[in-house]
Amino acid sequence: MSYFDAASAAPLHPVARQALQASLDEGWADPARLYREGRRARLLLDAAREAAADAVGCRPDELTFTTSGTRAAHSGIAGALAGRRRVGAHLIVSAVEHSSVLHSAELHEASGGTATRIPVDRTGRVSPSSYAGALRADTALACLQSANHEVGTEQPVEEVAQVCRGAGVPLLVDAAQSLGWGRVEGDWSLLTASAHKWGGPSGVGLLVVRKGTRFAPQGPSDERESGRAPGFENIPAVVAAAASLRAVHAQAAQEAVRLRELTERIRVRVPGLVPDVEVVGDPVRRLPGIVTFSCLYVDGETLLHELDRVGFSVSSGSSCTSSTLTPSHVLKAMGVLSEGNVRVSLPPGTPEEDVERFLAALPDTVAAVRERLGAPTSAVTEPAAPVDSLVVDALVVDALGRRCPIPVIELAKVIGDVPVGGTVRVLADDEAARLDIPAWCEMRGQEYVGEEPADHGSAYVVRRLS
Amino acid sequence: MSYFDAASAAPLHPVARQALQASLDEGWADPARLYREGRRARLLLDAAREAAADAVGCRPDELTFTTSGTRAAHSGIAGALAGRRRVGAHLIVSAVEHSSVLHSAELHEASGGTATRIPVDRTGRVSPSSYAGALRADTALACLQSANHEVGTEQPVEEVAQVCRGAGVPLLVDAAQSLGWGRVEGDWSLLTASAHKWGGPSGVGLLVVRKGTRFAPQGPSDERESGRAPGFENIPAVVAAAASLRAVHAQAAQEAVRLRELTERIRVRVPGLVPDVEVVGDPVRRLPGIVTFSCLYVDGETLLHELDRVGFSVSSGSSCTSSTLTPSHVLKAMGVLSEGNVRVSLPPGTPEEDVERFLAALPDTVAAVRERLGAPTSAVTEPAAPVDSLVVDALVVDALGRRCPIPVIELAKVIGDVPVGGTVRVLADDEAARLDIPAWCEMRGQEYVGEEPADHGSAYVVRRLS
Repeated sequence: MSYFDAASAAPLHPVARQALQASLDEGWADPARLYREGRRARLLLDAAREAAADAVGCRPDELTFTTSGTRAAHSGIAGALAGRRRVGAHLIVSAVEHSSVLHSAELHEASGGTATRIPVDRTGRVSPSSYAGALRADTALACLQSANHEVGTEQPVEEVAQVCRGAGVPLLVDAAQSLGWGRVEGDWSLLTASAHKWGGPSGVGLLVVRKGTRFAPQGPSDERESGRAPGFENIPAVVAAAASLRAVHAQAAQEAVRLRELTERIRVRVPGLVPDVEVVGDPVRRLPGIVTFSCLYVDGETLLHELDRVGFSVSSGSSCTSSTLTPSHVLKAMGVLSEGNVRVSLPPGTPEEDVERFLAALPDTVAAVRERLGAPTSAVTEPAAPVDSLVVDALVVDALGRRCPIPVIELAKVIGDVPVGGTVRVLADDEAARLDIPAWCEMRGQEYVGEEPADHGSAYVVRRLS
Repeated sequence: MSYFDAASAAPLHPVARQALQASLDEGWADPARLYREGRRARLLLDAAREAAADAVGCRPDELTFTTSGTRAAHSGIAGALAGRRRVGAHLIVSAVEHSSVLHSAELHEASGGTATRIPVDRTGRVSPSSYAGALRADTALACLQSANHEVGTEQPVEEVAQVCRGAGVPLLVDAAQSLGWGRVEGDWSLLTASAHKWGGPSGVGLLVVRKGTRFAPQGPSDERESGRAPGFENIPAVVAAAASLRAVHAQAAQEAVRLRELTERIRVRVPGLVPDVEVVGDPVRRLPGIVTFSCLYVDGETLLHELDRVGFSVSSGSSCTSSTLTPSHVLKAMGVLSEGNVRVSLPPGTPEEDVERFLAALPDTVAAVRERLGAPTSAVTEPAAPVDSLVVDALVVDALGRRCPIPVIELAKVIGDVPVGGTVRVLADDEAARLDIPAWCEMRGQEYVGEEPADHGSAYVVRRLS
């Protein structure tokens, strides 16, 4: 079994396990108590805070341990917005933030605030000038991830932080994906992270609030963790989180080079090994361990099952793997293909052989899924049929009620019947079609004319160019 | 070292430790994922939920794992209030709830809601008729702990649940202190608990919402734990929590008898071993492992330090041990002495010898603290001085700026100079005096006349009766 989903959760680092086990005996008592067991717990907590702060590059009293990265984001955003309530209620987030940030933004809007979502380019990257353009007199907070969790693209945090600082607006950086690789540089004001992403235990997040940042914790008051994270401290987990963060940082520079080379192999070789693949995300400014690609004419859930069956655990942003039946908001914001999406995120220590085995297994796996779906086998469009002017714009594909990737497969099947210059209308009510039909056109060199309302779902109009 | 503060946190149960260690290898992955590691994690999570639900006496889909008992209370109260927003915004809590519940009530009031705090009798117990009297047409929620965390008094949950059910109002039971001893009987609607109170790991709370209870989770939306507990699941801890709950339940009946006998020894013997002690809490309807008493003329923090020095870890509701300088709200609501307060809460398995050692060490420890403070050594008031009518009501003790127990000590020192029928005024600005001077009068058979405003602090007027 090769586990290639470190961006969801990394297996427990050996240092985390040791620290956790060692502190189960010393760290269970209430650190607020004055007796021996309480003092021991307090010492462990203080030492963990110092170690984590040192790794993050902040002061210990700026760092709070939360119960997850999600909680850190929720609490950090709510506290920062409330702390600057007098300035205004405008929030800026990128369109590709983690759901914890986007859901905070939705709640903020539902409570009467406003939010601007900064678009990204096709690699998933925001531009600092977009943030500059979005800043307003009533902007209370801006948020930007250090790197994207689905495609690995690194964001220009330093530049955006500078832009925000110039406007007197605090920037919250969600560093969940990158903190294990090193400190987040730049003049940010708040930072959040999640221990289980770097090999720490579940149940620990970090919330850093730089001195001088206005912050008003929300929710019922509580004395623990400077009032920023209510509830009894989970000291064994916190100790394990801090110890493992130091351990992964010590190896980060070396391991980054190694994993970057392995993900580069996937980036470069998959398009040659598997036809009709789009590799997504920034090819250079990216996390070492993440590579993401999408395969035309493939059902993401089936592909995941097949890869699991042959021994690879990966995740997917395809709608067909999600209970919500909508494709990943990240792929959507990037405007790239979502069907047959595969995210490979290698945990530190992944052996080279595992990656080679993956590259060896992928082509047949994808081909088998495609075959089962009756997908077109060739990337070459059939030669254009003789033009019959009567049918130039008459072709309609009815894919109503069919889930991704069927609408795209049906489109690919009929495109050969469309005369060059003619159009085909694909009727579909699957949310993914809106993303994947234009992406297919781009990959195939056909023209995506646009979307039109239909009795049911939408009609996606495609013109054959070649 | 004898650890007698199980009501704050119990040492990790061996079953919890085993389960935690065993599931570190299987429970780190994302249970929402479809691959092997995710499915294993899901199996563990589902099994833990079933085990915990069975122990609580609810359906698995009614039970959510939160990150602490505090979070369970915060989320449970907020969700239940929001779920019944249309009914009204009136909340009922007892005056002796845990701070997580009381702080939720304060936030509710600050947000425009109303709250009624149900008083308790001198044993710390509410009466069902008080709840009946407090229910209104706009009552959205009532809260009652199953047993008190500071004095061990059990609350009439079944009767209060019946009263609430009759009015169509959901009752939330904070079962943090009692769940390790068994299910909470009665027709309650919501229940919260905390794993580290029963020997489970830190980082796990329970929130049970019975089917049919209106509930609207607050905060940013999140898919995990039925939307009631955001953030990545801490599965190893959850597994350990469920396993240890079953383990402690299996031993509960037997261990309850044993601990009850040990705490009964303390209840009965301490007043004979140490002069001027008030044992507080219900003598019969109480948790097996908790006994609480207060010692006149003793500084709680010093007493805790001295007990720690001789090997006993206990906690205290005295103001002098708290950073807020106010005595425990529980002792205040009960109207009992707060100075020199000691809570002994025995973890299951506490050896009889440890309790005997405690009883042997306590008298000298208290005596030493009293001596250092210059406290009166005898419980007998000096014979009344010859009456001089000029000084009958003229005596004033200035204890301004002095912390507990000094105001009471100064009062005790001068009472002998007060003619029978005469009064003495104690000037004090320490919050504890308001509680402890009346309590002293009750213990000493003197009359507490009342409190009068003074230039600084208050004047507490005491009449000598004997």
